[in-house]
Amino acid sequence: MSSSPSSQPSHDQLATKAQAWSALFSEPMSDLVKRYTSSVFFDKRLWQADIAGSLAHADMLAAQGIISGEDHASIQRGMAQIQQEIESGAFEWKLDLEDVHLNIEARLTQLVGDAGKRLHTGRSRNDQVATDVRLWLRSEIDLIADLLKELQVSLVDVAEQNVEVILPGFTHLQVAQPVSFGHHMLAYVEMFARDADRMADVRRRVNVLPLGSAALAGTTYPLDRERVAKTLGMVDANGAPAVCQNSLDAVSDRDFAIEFTAAASLCMVHVSRLSEELIIWMSQNFGFIKIADRFTTGSSIMPQKKNPDVPELARGKTGRVVGHLMGLITLMKGQPLAYNKDNQEDKEPLFDTVDTLKDTLRIFAEMVGGQLNPATGKKEGGITVNAPAMEQAALKGYATATDLADYLVKKGLPFRDAHETVAHAVKAAVSHNVDLSELPLAVLQGFHPQIEKDVFDALSLRGSLNARNTLGGTAPAQVRAQLARHRSRLA
Amino acid sequence: MSSSPSSQPSHDQLATKAQAWSALFSEPMSDLVKRYTSSVFFDKRLWQADIAGSLAHADMLAAQGIISGEDHASIQRGMAQIQQEIESGAFEWKLDLEDVHLNIEARLTQLVGDAGKRLHTGRSRNDQVATDVRLWLRSEIDLIADLLKELQVSLVDVAEQNVEVILPGFTHLQVAQPVSFGHHMLAYVEMFARDADRMADVRRRVNVLPLGSAALAGTTYPLDRERVAKTLGMVDANGAPAVCQNSLDAVSDRDFAIEFTAAASLCMVHVSRLSEELIIWMSQNFGFIKIADRFTTGSSIMPQKKNPDVPELARGKTGRVVGHLMGLITLMKGQPLAYNKDNQEDKEPLFDTVDTLKDTLRIFAEMVGGQLNPATGKKEGGITVNAPAMEQAALKGYATATDLADYLVKKGLPFRDAHETVAHAVKAAVSHNVDLSELPLAVLQGFHPQIEKDVFDALSLRGSLNARNTLGGTAPAQVRAQLARHRSRLA
Amino acid sequence: MSSSPSSQPSHDQLATKAQAWSALFSEPMSDLVKRYTSSVFFDKRLWQADIAGSLAHADMLAAQGIISGEDHASIQRGMAQIQQEIESGAFEWKLDLEDVHLNIEARLTQLVGDAGKRLHTGRSRNDQVATDVRLWLRSEIDLIADLLKELQVSLVDVAEQNVEVILPGFTHLQVAQPVSFGHHMLAYVEMFARDADRMADVRRRVNVLPLGSAALAGTTYPLDRERVAKTLGMVDANGAPAVCQNSLDAVSDRDFAIEFTAAASLCMVHVSRLSEELIIWMSQNFGFIKIADRFTTGSSIMPQKKNPDVPELARGKTGRVVGHLMGLITLMKGQPLAYNKDNQEDKEPLFDTVDTLKDTLRIFAEMVGGQLNPATGKKEGGITVNAPAMEQAALKGYATATDLADYLVKKGLPFRDAHETVAHAVKAAVSHNVDLSELPLAVLQGFHPQIEKDVFDALSLRGSLNARNTLGGTAPAQVRAQLARHRSRLA
Amino acid sequence: MSSSPSSQPSHDQLATKAQAWSALFSEPMSDLVKRYTSSVFFDKRLWQADIAGSLAHADMLAAQGIISGEDHASIQRGMAQIQQEIESGAFEWKLDLEDVHLNIEARLTQLVGDAGKRLHTGRSRNDQVATDVRLWLRSEIDLIADLLKELQVSLVDVAEQNVEVILPGFTHLQVAQPVSFGHHMLAYVEMFARDADRMADVRRRVNVLPLGSAALAGTTYPLDRERVAKTLGMVDANGAPAVCQNSLDAVSDRDFAIEFTAAASLCMVHVSRLSEELIIWMSQNFGFIKIADRFTTGSSIMPQKKNPDVPELARGKTGRVVGHLMGLITLMKGQPLAYNKDNQEDKEPLFDTVDTLKDTLRIFAEMVGGQLNPATGKKEGGITVNAPAMEQAALKGYATATDLADYLVKKGLPFRDAHETVAHAVKAAVSHNVDLSELPLAVLQGFHPQIEKDVFDALSLRGSLNARNTLGGTAPAQVRAQLARHRSRLA
Repeated sequence: MSSSPSSQPSHDQLATKAQAWSALFSEPMSDLVKRYTSSVFFDKRLWQADIAGSLAHADMLAAQGIISGEDHASIQRGMAQIQQEIESGAFEWKLDLEDVHLNIEARLTQLVGDAGKRLHTGRSRNDQVATDVRLWLRSEIDLIADLLKELQVSLVDVAEQNVEVILPGFTHLQVAQPVSFGHHMLAYVEMFARDADRMADVRRRVNVLPLGSAALAGTTYPLDRERVAKTLGMVDANGAPAVCQNSLDAVSDRDFAIEFTAAASLCMVHVSRLSEELIIWMSQNFGFIKIADRFTTGSSIMPQKKNPDVPELARGKTGRVVGHLMGLITLMKGQPLAYNKDNQEDKEPLFDTVDTLKDTLRIFAEMVGGQLNPATGKKEGGITVNAPAMEQAALKGYATATDLADYLVKKGLPFRDAHETVAHAVKAAVSHNVDLSELPLAVLQGFHPQIEKDVFDALSLRGSLNARNTLGGTAPAQVRAQLARHRSRLA
Repeated sequence: MSSSPSSQPSHDQLATKAQAWSALFSEPMSDLVKRYTSSVFFDKRLWQADIAGSLAHADMLAAQGIISGEDHASIQRGMAQIQQEIESGAFEWKLDLEDVHLNIEARLTQLVGDAGKRLHTGRSRNDQVATDVRLWLRSEIDLIADLLKELQVSLVDVAEQNVEVILPGFTHLQVAQPVSFGHHMLAYVEMFARDADRMADVRRRVNVLPLGSAALAGTTYPLDRERVAKTLGMVDANGAPAVCQNSLDAVSDRDFAIEFTAAASLCMVHVSRLSEELIIWMSQNFGFIKIADRFTTGSSIMPQKKNPDVPELARGKTGRVVGHLMGLITLMKGQPLAYNKDNQEDKEPLFDTVDTLKDTLRIFAEMVGGQLNPATGKKEGGITVNAPAMEQAALKGYATATDLADYLVKKGLPFRDAHETVAHAVKAAVSHNVDLSELPLAVLQGFHPQIEKDVFDALSLRGSLNARNTLGGTAPAQVRAQLARHRSRLA
Repeated sequence: MSSSPSSQPSHDQLATKAQAWSALFSEPMSDLVKRYTSSVFFDKRLWQADIAGSLAHADMLAAQGIISGEDHASIQRGMAQIQQEIESGAFEWKLDLEDVHLNIEARLTQLVGDAGKRLHTGRSRNDQVATDVRLWLRSEIDLIADLLKELQVSLVDVAEQNVEVILPGFTHLQVAQPVSFGHHMLAYVEMFARDADRMADVRRRVNVLPLGSAALAGTTYPLDRERVAKTLGMVDANGAPAVCQNSLDAVSDRDFAIEFTAAASLCMVHVSRLSEELIIWMSQNFGFIKIADRFTTGSSIMPQKKNPDVPELARGKTGRVVGHLMGLITLMKGQPLAYNKDNQEDKEPLFDTVDTLKDTLRIFAEMVGGQLNPATGKKEGGITVNAPAMEQAALKGYATATDLADYLVKKGLPFRDAHETVAHAVKAAVSHNVDLSELPLAVLQGFHPQIEKDVFDALSLRGSLNARNTLGGTAPAQVRAQLARHRSRLA
Repeated sequence: MSSSPSSQPSHDQLATKAQAWSALFSEPMSDLVKRYTSSVFFDKRLWQADIAGSLAHADMLAAQGIISGEDHASIQRGMAQIQQEIESGAFEWKLDLEDVHLNIEARLTQLVGDAGKRLHTGRSRNDQVATDVRLWLRSEIDLIADLLKELQVSLVDVAEQNVEVILPGFTHLQVAQPVSFGHHMLAYVEMFARDADRMADVRRRVNVLPLGSAALAGTTYPLDRERVAKTLGMVDANGAPAVCQNSLDAVSDRDFAIEFTAAASLCMVHVSRLSEELIIWMSQNFGFIKIADRFTTGSSIMPQKKNPDVPELARGKTGRVVGHLMGLITLMKGQPLAYNKDNQEDKEPLFDTVDTLKDTLRIFAEMVGGQLNPATGKKEGGITVNAPAMEQAALKGYATATDLADYLVKKGLPFRDAHETVAHAVKAAVSHNVDLSELPLAVLQGFHPQIEKDVFDALSLRGSLNARNTLGGTAPAQVRAQLARHRSRLA
């Protein structure tokens, strides 16, 4: 069963792809082509998933009697050494070996000989790379889930401290109605909670095993794919192994990458909305909040500047992630089955999306909520709220006009009529440059005789706030109920 | 409790927005601005959802004692008439009334007077439009789910008839290994099954009630939002009412539209891949399949032409849907809370995405699987498979080279060495312009002494096919197992 | 030369594509397929270009002796009637006839018999549709060029009236330095001038003739394509005919549509930036400007609201146009030569891009600059500038800190040192909650001994403004120079 | 004029941004924020442009007497050393110094003291970075122009060798009419010629000077911006200096980046179309061409594989570039004036677009046309054309059916009637499984009595080819005329 003579070319194949792929090839790749087609410099970050996948595959090959126990042990030993080499930085990544998979396999063969060559039995790079990316992405989604939770906790913290702080709620960036700043913060908690929910759905579809599909058609070896799935934790909600059921689909599918990037894009859209608000709120004419200096930069020319760089960059990075989504969709459009080399282009946008999203969530969690001061056990350095500026702004723009209309409805007017009556009152107030609450009762009564003294309760900011006391409304009682729900949910 | 005098302006407001919005406005909209800002000509398709939402709202207002039973009855009566008018085409849609909501409400007020005006109590157009779109989209997703099932059934039908038909499986559009045509069809069933799964996830997040959030901050009326949710079937998996928990988020969120369009884009990417294959397979040099004449067109200049217009258009329409996704994301990026008029631009891309997806799925289900002939009770006119052409093509390109390598591995060679040995054999076969199976045994043995007579079993197409008999592989036994699974799943 | 018997089927072909394309087709299109593949309901807007192209083609066919003078006259007569029918609304557009081209040709044949059938000699729908779209787009680009000029004139008008009005220039939405509001407006003139420049480049590449390329390979008839090009005004800068030089490229190229949509996207990005500023400036905390009531709407619930709907919608419509760009690129990616049906999907996004851009530019020109009052000969109703609010805002945020640094540089400090010195001064002013100009001279001198009494000139808004008196700077003298340049350029 | 004491903090500012931006900042950036906001690791590639811009600025400052000749000489000396350090790899890039500009300036100040600090007089990073990117992009566009020419020459070379080679021209990937392979290649020359034309337009708008706009409002120093423009070669077609005319626009404009990326996207779309064709042509059922082994790879599992990796990757990389375009547009949408930190996100997509486009064009020029063999002075290793396979394919699909119709038109039939007659003939030929040219004359005459013996000339591939002899047609005479035009144009 020895194959020593013929094993030479194979070793050459792996070690010197610079020469040529196989006997079929009359010339080696040029350097430019090698650079153009190689992926090792970005896909080497998959090394842990690659080794985990190989070990699970080897374990199954041995259990099925496809390789010997001796070979299995050699592979485990070799992989342990490779892991150590990579972690210590001693591993030499070779462009000639094209990708992470061949680099690791070539080194394994160098270390343990034919056992290393036998590892590739019943699999191909097509199913191997799909498996690696899924394993890697699954663990990144878990990190992202944690970061989404952290950010939500930060927002909930700030909300809790500001339930009674009133700012003008805007529609069309025009003053609309008074809202609780806590309520406003919780709107973002809803968004990031939906993001987490979506990520969980994506994870379910990521966590399915392609390995064993081989190049495209399955394999002639008696693999136990479900064993591999279980070893790698690829199981469904009931613990049953989750295995790709069609080999052609398994090697060519990149839905999971697109779906993840779409979910990440939505999350970045939420970040961009929060960023936009932070930037506006920090502008001198608003002055609603400050973010800590460590999230800002100055100007090389204007000595007074303190710029909200982090929210601006995050808003900009939305474009980056959305661009990746569009790139990935364009990539897959119109590809015939099964695997095509185009698919190699899935990795960089996916990697950069993960990196961007993780960095952004981490930095926002800290920027909003501050960081733990170990001395005090409290978080410090989150956003600083200027409550008086917010309340001052809420007094502009006739924020309680709706309350006057509701007041009239309670007196029996149809809403549409009350609305028009109040429009007249606002017009008068504008012309006198005063708020509705500053109009004398007699003047107000001129707009409708049923207006009485108690109208001024309705016209106060706090009266308006407290009155919106239905599920999801801005009344402090409602906000506190939501806080309790989120605290319990995020615990 | 009469308010007859002041009710006039309100009626004017609704009937003649051509004049001005309210007493605050010094001039009416110009015609160009009206056209630019109006949405009634595309959002009128929401009318059923709008009426359903209004009826549920009215029912709750009455139950809570916010409107009288008499008013409630008037609203129900008015809405019944409006429904009839719209269905019969008698309803007059007015550009001046801007959108579907004001058109219906103005007509209601015309029909039932003040009761109609009272309907708007405790809601605003901001939460109303969000509710309408969600209700409408939910029902469209249900239709799409049906169509996805129909298409899967068509593909399963074709797969079942072609389990034993062999075509060359391609990677890189180069002949790779023989596969079952049934297996190939089932790859698409996997894709559309994932699409259905995603749509179900989207539906869950669509089916949540914004109504009662009013303009942005909730309302001062004692609404029972959960009652409305239940009336409208907005409940979670456990039957609990699903209600948006934050009013600011409720009126400004368009995640559901983006998420749906992203899922639709992925589905269209799958359609584009299938289309690409159909187009290539129909090209004369392949000649693998035909689609029925009713899905093709001729040429005004070339009399011999029969062009696969439908797959080509579908491939092209992928761009359309992806464009809508990009448009919607761009729309939402960087918007401050809460509702901004930008959001009105969500509708046309969403509507067109739904229309495009539904038409495409419906037409593909029929094009692939044919349509029911009531006389025979069988489907007719689906794709026609040219099995000999497929098999002929599979004989090109050394599709069983991997089988030879596997054969050698079973003789004890490490896979990598077997691979190189076979490359030499292929090189020789290429130079003689014959298939591997046409090389004499003696020649084959020259590449490796352990090759014996039984090698020719491995080198046959059918031998290769049958050998890939692991879960997800192309062996007919596996394909039949998958067929059974899909039949049961789709029943 | 009679062909009466065989002419019947052809007539049927055109009149009843519902039956089938030609003798080759065994069944007609289904209604769903017809709807899916037909384009007549959106491409009928090309009718003028279609007739113009046909007339130029017929003129050349006659001149070359390919058709008789009699036939030519019949075609001209028939087309004149068709034009009249379309303009009067009498023309009956038929879905069965698929597109604008077959509809017009079928009617022509109905009107003038065989002459109508001869019109299609030497051309195909592939080159015909490419010609029509190019002719149509050329005329739309000319309209857009006019609208871009109008908008620039409006901006220049507003700029001229506000040269001396000072607002805070922002970077990072933080107060940076005082700028002239006129200068700020002229920044947008630069953008729209670049858009016009780009449109002119696009027009050059649009204005090239595909006709005569026939289906894909050219034609066997002795066409004079250059004559047709001249007739249709498709000439280069030197008056030489501009003709597509490769028939395969001519029928499959859609670069011009993508290039136009890319230019339109950039223009919409500029509109979105201006919109964003208008919206922020109208927010109560800024209050810098007002737009006329006819560009705003109210709220159905909040009686005090006056919302900047037009800028918001325009900002939203940016997504729409960008989506079309993405759709068109996705459409063309990876298409093999020559014409594929996918290309039919180029029209709707192109048409909608043109419509959206034209409406937006027209409405912005009026919203910014107002409309002509025939009574006074002046424009009225443009944006209203609140100069005091702008100046007040400029006094916040230490807008003249750079001027103090520059002052110190003129005293000999390296800029970097002056910058740091001023940072200390700003810090002190912040802590006392005063502007730099409100610090006593003695205090200022504490930061640097060379500061003298004349520092207060540098610290005033107007002093700062006047000092930035280099090419492109904000000093009123510079702004006036630019105004003169623009006036002359736009005359 | 000494400022020794206060110069210390400034030095600290540059050397230790880790501490804080200026006296205004109470805390340094955290490491995460530094990494999130720094750009030096990708923008250091701008170093040559940065130094060139600084030298031109210093030259002007000296000429205007703003800095002394001594300072000017020091700056020149310092920059020479920095250039040397960077080229030799000795330069130490510091993350703490955020970007390429501060890194170089800090080193300059280290080397030459206060002169280095004075260099920043009258400019800011906002106009500096805009200048650097424009200078860098201009030189990259020049390289791209060369590569586009090289690729066109390669295509022209192949076209010239294959004027008489016939392949089936396709529409809808169905055999349409015979075309010259040379003609087909020249279709791509048209596309890449348009790309070059577009790049020239982009270059004109890139080559304009922002420097001197300072942070946003211009500067108080008497700069001579036109001198700087001339020094840097930023001049228009007439040699007049090209200078941004509005400081706010100058620092915030990124049109040029978007416009370049749009042009690059179109170019990649062309590459994707060529790639798609190469991939289809290499598939075994076509077998029209081969590309050299050095542009292909094998399979780790299938020993017979030779995959067209380069065209596939290039097709995939289209998505990458398109994604960057979408990212950049999303980035700029809705940004208020003037500079915002979002803009920093313009660089990575721009850089990657340039790299991708250059690599792709270079590799395609060689893959199509081969590379120069210095021994023979000839290019070798370009695509290999299998003329018999092409001609064989052209004999399928009734490619000359149009010629038969044209033949009948010349006998007096209206085209539409001839078209239908030929459809009947094709139907008969299909049913006998023969080509039209294989039908006996008598049978042909059964379809129309005027068919005579000379019909067989029209029905031959070569007869069909030669007959399409009008401008832009596929007749060899036309193709040769185009070759001559391109040779002269590209000389």
